[in-house]
Amino acid sequence: MIKVGIVGGTGYTGAELLRLFAQHPQARVTLLTSRKEAGQRADAMFPHLRGHCELSFSAPDPEALAACDAVFFATPHGTAMQMAPALVARGVKVIDLSADFRLRDPAVFQSWYKLEHSARELLAEAVYGLPEVHREAIARARIVANPGCYPTAVQLGLLPLLKAGAVDTGHIVADCKSGVSGAGREAKIGSLYGEVADSFKAYAVPGHRHGPEILQGVADIAGAPVAVTFVPHLLPQFRGIHATLYARLTRPVDNLQRLYEQAFVGEPFVDVAPAGDHPETRGVRGGNTCRIAVHLAPDRQTVVVLSVIDNLVKGASGQAVQNFNLMFGLDERLGLQAPPLAP
Amino acid sequence: MIKVGIVGGTGYTGAELLRLFAQHPQARVTLLTSRKEAGQRADAMFPHLRGHCELSFSAPDPEALAACDAVFFATPHGTAMQMAPALVARGVKVIDLSADFRLRDPAVFQSWYKLEHSARELLAEAVYGLPEVHREAIARARIVANPGCYPTAVQLGLLPLLKAGAVDTGHIVADCKSGVSGAGREAKIGSLYGEVADSFKAYAVPGHRHGPEILQGVADIAGAPVAVTFVPHLLPQFRGIHATLYARLTRPVDNLQRLYEQAFVGEPFVDVAPAGDHPETRGVRGGNTCRIAVHLAPDRQTVVVLSVIDNLVKGASGQAVQNFNLMFGLDERLGLQAPPLAP
Amino acid sequence: MIKVGIVGGTGYTGAELLRLFAQHPQARVTLLTSRKEAGQRADAMFPHLRGHCELSFSAPDPEALAACDAVFFATPHGTAMQMAPALVARGVKVIDLSADFRLRDPAVFQSWYKLEHSARELLAEAVYGLPEVHREAIARARIVANPGCYPTAVQLGLLPLLKAGAVDTGHIVADCKSGVSGAGREAKIGSLYGEVADSFKAYAVPGHRHGPEILQGVADIAGAPVAVTFVPHLLPQFRGIHATLYARLTRPVDNLQRLYEQAFVGEPFVDVAPAGDHPETRGVRGGNTCRIAVHLAPDRQTVVVLSVIDNLVKGASGQAVQNFNLMFGLDERLGLQAPPLAP
Amino acid sequence: MIKVGIVGGTGYTGAELLRLFAQHPQARVTLLTSRKEAGQRADAMFPHLRGHCELSFSAPDPEALAACDAVFFATPHGTAMQMAPALVARGVKVIDLSADFRLRDPAVFQSWYKLEHSARELLAEAVYGLPEVHREAIARARIVANPGCYPTAVQLGLLPLLKAGAVDTGHIVADCKSGVSGAGREAKIGSLYGEVADSFKAYAVPGHRHGPEILQGVADIAGAPVAVTFVPHLLPQFRGIHATLYARLTRPVDNLQRLYEQAFVGEPFVDVAPAGDHPETRGVRGGNTCRIAVHLAPDRQTVVVLSVIDNLVKGASGQAVQNFNLMFGLDERLGLQAPPLAP
Repeated sequence: MIKVGIVGGTGYTGAELLRLFAQHPQARVTLLTSRKEAGQRADAMFPHLRGHCELSFSAPDPEALAACDAVFFATPHGTAMQMAPALVARGVKVIDLSADFRLRDPAVFQSWYKLEHSARELLAEAVYGLPEVHREAIARARIVANPGCYPTAVQLGLLPLLKAGAVDTGHIVADCKSGVSGAGREAKIGSLYGEVADSFKAYAVPGHRHGPEILQGVADIAGAPVAVTFVPHLLPQFRGIHATLYARLTRPVDNLQRLYEQAFVGEPFVDVAPAGDHPETRGVRGGNTCRIAVHLAPDRQTVVVLSVIDNLVKGASGQAVQNFNLMFGLDERLGLQAPPLAP
Repeated sequence: MIKVGIVGGTGYTGAELLRLFAQHPQARVTLLTSRKEAGQRADAMFPHLRGHCELSFSAPDPEALAACDAVFFATPHGTAMQMAPALVARGVKVIDLSADFRLRDPAVFQSWYKLEHSARELLAEAVYGLPEVHREAIARARIVANPGCYPTAVQLGLLPLLKAGAVDTGHIVADCKSGVSGAGREAKIGSLYGEVADSFKAYAVPGHRHGPEILQGVADIAGAPVAVTFVPHLLPQFRGIHATLYARLTRPVDNLQRLYEQAFVGEPFVDVAPAGDHPETRGVRGGNTCRIAVHLAPDRQTVVVLSVIDNLVKGASGQAVQNFNLMFGLDERLGLQAPPLAP
Repeated sequence: MIKVGIVGGTGYTGAELLRLFAQHPQARVTLLTSRKEAGQRADAMFPHLRGHCELSFSAPDPEALAACDAVFFATPHGTAMQMAPALVARGVKVIDLSADFRLRDPAVFQSWYKLEHSARELLAEAVYGLPEVHREAIARARIVANPGCYPTAVQLGLLPLLKAGAVDTGHIVADCKSGVSGAGREAKIGSLYGEVADSFKAYAVPGHRHGPEILQGVADIAGAPVAVTFVPHLLPQFRGIHATLYARLTRPVDNLQRLYEQAFVGEPFVDVAPAGDHPETRGVRGGNTCRIAVHLAPDRQTVVVLSVIDNLVKGASGQAVQNFNLMFGLDERLGLQAPPLAP
Repeated sequence: MIKVGIVGGTGYTGAELLRLFAQHPQARVTLLTSRKEAGQRADAMFPHLRGHCELSFSAPDPEALAACDAVFFATPHGTAMQMAPALVARGVKVIDLSADFRLRDPAVFQSWYKLEHSARELLAEAVYGLPEVHREAIARARIVANPGCYPTAVQLGLLPLLKAGAVDTGHIVADCKSGVSGAGREAKIGSLYGEVADSFKAYAVPGHRHGPEILQGVADIAGAPVAVTFVPHLLPQFRGIHATLYARLTRPVDNLQRLYEQAFVGEPFVDVAPAGDHPETRGVRGGNTCRIAVHLAPDRQTVVVLSVIDNLVKGASGQAVQNFNLMFGLDERLGLQAPPLAP
């Protein structure tokens, strides 16, 4: 059994890691840290885990963490870059669900996160954990930066078009919608039921932290800069991201559907929906699948891509488990095979 | 008291007309027709109207309708074009909430609604009921085609940019999201709670009936054809439309906020949100306001407009009452002044 | 115009007072206090009030409050009992939406609210603001204790049975369900969307603060102690209380429907639903109505009463305006006549 | 591999059977019938099953069904009693999720379901599939009547009190709340999003079909008639039943918590919550657990039991799989071990 530690297990992504590892046949969570909740059982905070997780939170202890084979950071930004270097040095594989190791340029990191990066060497080494793009590097990595939720949906949705060089990379629109779980399990007015339910709005139009991550990722895929206007919106639901992507063809593409199907052949967690389909977020609720449909708009020139994920799974903890499997040479699908729950 | 008849009062827009007229000081609904529900009290079907409406449904009767001063059609497509000509001929003012009189070109109507238009003369005379564009013509009209919900949000959101000739009219994106009330009060699987709640999806990407209406409307505003890629989405909520509009500037605009504020000066039902704001659909729930915010994307070249309405009010019944007020020379705001209900 | 002040206007009941007074023809809110938000416009916090309220919050100032004709306390417990005595002494009428003046016995107050009562004289004078029971006293009162939300639904639901002496007062069950707005607009984990949506639970089964208020109220109505087992539950919705009340008949009642209709004849805000009806909370959403249906269970001996209110209106701010109207000799319905919003 | 057939797989319980069997290591669904949808793939109707179920619906064919080892009926009432006798005669084990074999007395069945029972011999043989009460009989049964959702939550919640003979069986109240999935996947106005969301109501107070099933079940447990006033309510959520049960103690019970824990020792799918807990429906969402908390009301005499299930799992398809496991001598938990999904 591979021994897994989770730092910061009191949020939604921590709880998802516990849920997913409860179904993993070759790994077991043995350590779960939270300074604030030390001593409390995890299933007292998350009753759906009763009978599936016997752990209690403990205060983070470097020795105990170093005794794990892998450590996941499900922490706010700024923690992983403090603690990861020592763990990696002691041979622990690290998967960071926070943003600390996502942006390669520390200056860009600092301008968006208002923190100086304190682990630049490790940052240089970290692999961006989008398996559909960086599978081999992930398998060899000591530390993986697990992608953000919006960037996952957007990059996978655009990948076939960018690889094919078929669209105008100067003007892509990514209109993205997320359930409120993306805002975390923090007591703030904006996340109250009374503020979120039965309403819809955009936010952060002038600039969102996932913007630079998207630009970095699509440039990696395209091999050149790509301009994406990214606007996030808040959905009155808990889980789910829907990215609606608009790109203009620069040349005729024979068969968009086939382009997409071929781009993702063999991918266990990307499902190209049947031609003409409009995927729903609930169709992947609780599952690690990114489901993508591709359409041509009535003008016959604008490609409209619909890309849906469960932001807590493929957009966070599920992708983290997928990366974990790759890093340990396991079948990529372990722990991730239960069907989604719908409706 | 102006006598009002409503044809087809069993849907959500019919119920909204009853709610709004209950607060109208100079008009009273005197006739409410439904072939299927004839004899039933309206407040038995819509208990929130108990104490506010004593009417029962009756089978549609031409004489009784002709005795009204104004008749609203809250019917599926195809009914108003059958019944309106006789009413107009007898001096009854008609406000049609269906699509029958929205598209000026009967061939376009036929291609989208699969019905031959049976009232072409009246169609030629009908005024498109968007007061912010056609106020004077509405005031003189015998028949008003009340705009669709998406087209209302999109046209008002784009109006200042189009009038200013400031954006590339070849490539505008209108990513629109609607609550499920837009689908009406019809027993169909797709509108079940179990199919709508806690999920989000696009629909009709290859083409939606509101597409040609939008194109006709923005061309009227711009004085030339405008290309809009329109994609509708279904929100897990009952009321509300949020249009996110993307347009590229063709010349520097000094002050987008001021451009918007000046474009709507004096408009009682368009509220330009404070600079930097992200309007929520619930902020206009139950009200006739269209609230609009304008942003510049991080690329400094793409204008992002956020336009929200209650699809049943400014997107349907409220705008219909506004048109009614204009047609009868009343203060445009009568019956429409109660604050929205939020949260 | 009657000048109204609101102390603590940043919560949901404060916002509701602003919404309701925006429609009141004879009163105007002239003062709105919040220490924390002083200087901010109310409509920046509550965008649905844009165009309906020009006020900004100000720090509470005794002189400014004393210049009002009436002051509403929409504060947490403990504030009104500090500030009300001086206001009453200066001739300001006070309506307290908090619990400070609801429980006549200061010892009971202290045991449930963990605060010693600091205004016992005023407490002795305060009138419990349930108009259907204490209308005349309210009209003469200098200070009114606005009832709690659950107690309003329960007392009105039981009133006809208790007045008729028709049920076993030793064993009444009040199974009550409330939308989350009852928990206020406070940043706490338990009120997050992620904790409330798509789930249902009971809370405070061993004892809830509204328990003693219910017992006091039903005893007043019955003229003797009544035992009520009260269990509150949290609904995944924002507004609405549904009380399901179970009482055993001690003697045959000829016609329960008529008993209820007669008990509430002339009441502007109690609506006895048609026989056999099952009222929905949304049927009173935004309105001041308490709608009640009465049934006999299949055992022909247990009366089941269904009593619904909007907890923020008849259960709080609407009832407060109703009390205000009574205290100032106005038509009880002023400001409260707009139809509910449904769906 | 045990071969499983499902008759009527287009509803929510049918889809749940497919979801659960996708995780079952020793059984496989090989036949899925629907007259109406014959030819369509199941995952086209239920996209969350893409990648987990390759089956298409076929028209029901007696020979194909007889080739299965077990057949589940996920049909409306009246179908199973037509088809089950022939299947049982040919050695196929039958689990009926409809009501056809739940009520032992065919006259009671007929009075509630308005159908004459056409399989009285098989009815006499059928075992009521509540494993916590009838485990041994289920293991030997040829046909199992899978319990209704409300009856499951109520019976399990009352079981310890009834077995202990500790409460007044003359006056028990079962105030029950269910998500809308209990109404099935049928196109009807009452199940529309617009009719269910953001609202709450009771229904069928004068009598509900699960009433007689509850009375039969609790009498079996108690060994004598028990009077239960059962009132169902509709929650604005998809999954979940919460039964709040009120019973009066007839003698002091030392330790209610221990009484409950001991009553369910060893039960894999009944979880007695920690003392003082208030279980949430989402804590069992997607899982087969019935979670129960027991409290004493402030009067120290009324026991309040909170019993929650996922109505589609422990209240339908999960319990059906549990019964299937028992009938085939398998570990009762197979296919049912994935953690619930929350939030």
